[in-house]
Amino acid sequence: MKCLHRPDLYTWSSFNPARNIDFNGIAWIRPEGNILIDPVALSNHDWNHLESLGGVAWIILTNSDHIRAAKEIVCQTYAKIAGPLAEQDTFPIECDRWLSDGDELAPGLKTIELQGSKTPGELALLLEETTLITGDLIRAHRAGSLNILAQEKLLDAKAAIASVHRLAQLSKVETVLVGDGWSVFWDGHLRLKELAATL
Amino acid sequence: MKCLHRPDLYTWSSFNPARNIDFNGIAWIRPEGNILIDPVALSNHDWNHLESLGGVAWIILTNSDHIRAAKEIVCQTYAKIAGPLAEQDTFPIECDRWLSDGDELAPGLKTIELQGSKTPGELALLLEETTLITGDLIRAHRAGSLNILAQEKLLDAKAAIASVHRLAQLSKVETVLVGDGWSVFWDGHLRLKELAATL
Repeated sequence: MKCLHRPDLYTWSSFNPARNIDFNGIAWIRPEGNILIDPVALSNHDWNHLESLGGVAWIILTNSDHIRAAKEIVCQTYAKIAGPLAEQDTFPIECDRWLSDGDELAPGLKTIELQGSKTPGELALLLEETTLITGDLIRAHRAGSLNILAQEKLLDAKAAIASVHRLAQLSKVETVLVGDGWSVFWDGHLRLKELAATL
Repeated sequence: MKCLHRPDLYTWSSFNPARNIDFNGIAWIRPEGNILIDPVALSNHDWNHLESLGGVAWIILTNSDHIRAAKEIVCQTYAKIAGPLAEQDTFPIECDRWLSDGDELAPGLKTIELQGSKTPGELALLLEETTLITGDLIRAHRAGSLNILAQEKLLDAKAAIASVHRLAQLSKVETVLVGDGWSVFWDGHLRLKELAATL
């Protein structure tokens, strides 16, 4: 796994040839149990790396289109899964917990529920106010700037745009880790504001 | 290949498990013939993508430790190779041109010769004043900040540090594309100055 901007955060990626971007999994390493977010498949090397850092306690899935390798990881570990409450009735994989706006699966990791994206109640996660982790709605197909899902993929474009504006008000955000594409490691708040201004 | 910060720049990567970073190849797409820099192996998908964008005319190798997939690419194309002049006598692959400080293989792509790195006269490339492309000396093992090669790998630490200070004076640099690790897409000049200040 690759070291992110904090020593307790890692990522590993799988290149998606249909979109020419990387799909990224994220690992938050913590003494109380590591948390993976939208994990893509792990290579043998990354499995060993993750095990050496304490394995995995929880997997958070931001939406039903980001199940990725969660099932395979759960089969090989005792990891529990948390998913978006708004998808509870139709979620394609069994969850141990459902998250909605304001929930903290672990102290410091705040859930933000987005509206109008590809799926109902897609999750974004705010880690200690400064690192925003997004699933599908906010992404980056081009290095250095953020974009949102194509309009035709949105359940409700007006609601989705309102959710982006809400994220753009998080003034302490420095880093935006995206599930799909290029993450931003400086001035995340500015990049979110620039994105919101284009919508 | 993944789209970088400009529509004429692409990258593709190979994860290096020994260092837990990506090794990156870069493609500059131009009507007069595309230029690859320190190319890692291309997947079939990336080969097709590159072909659809006009194939490859030149490969620039920043140093003899970054030959990577150059030989395989040359075998399958009519690409020519440019390498660092200071390694002319011992370079492990045949070159069609040797580059040193101030040379422009193509208009807008300026060669900067670094001193004291792992190899003599390692090349950095400055594209249209704003995008700096580095091979080995300047790299990023952690997302969001730059570092240099470990001291024990340097031929001459004092000379290498002087080269970093020289790059840190390029005040128009916004982007730093590294051959090894995490590239920087905003405020590259600031990140270079921060790096220089630590040396």
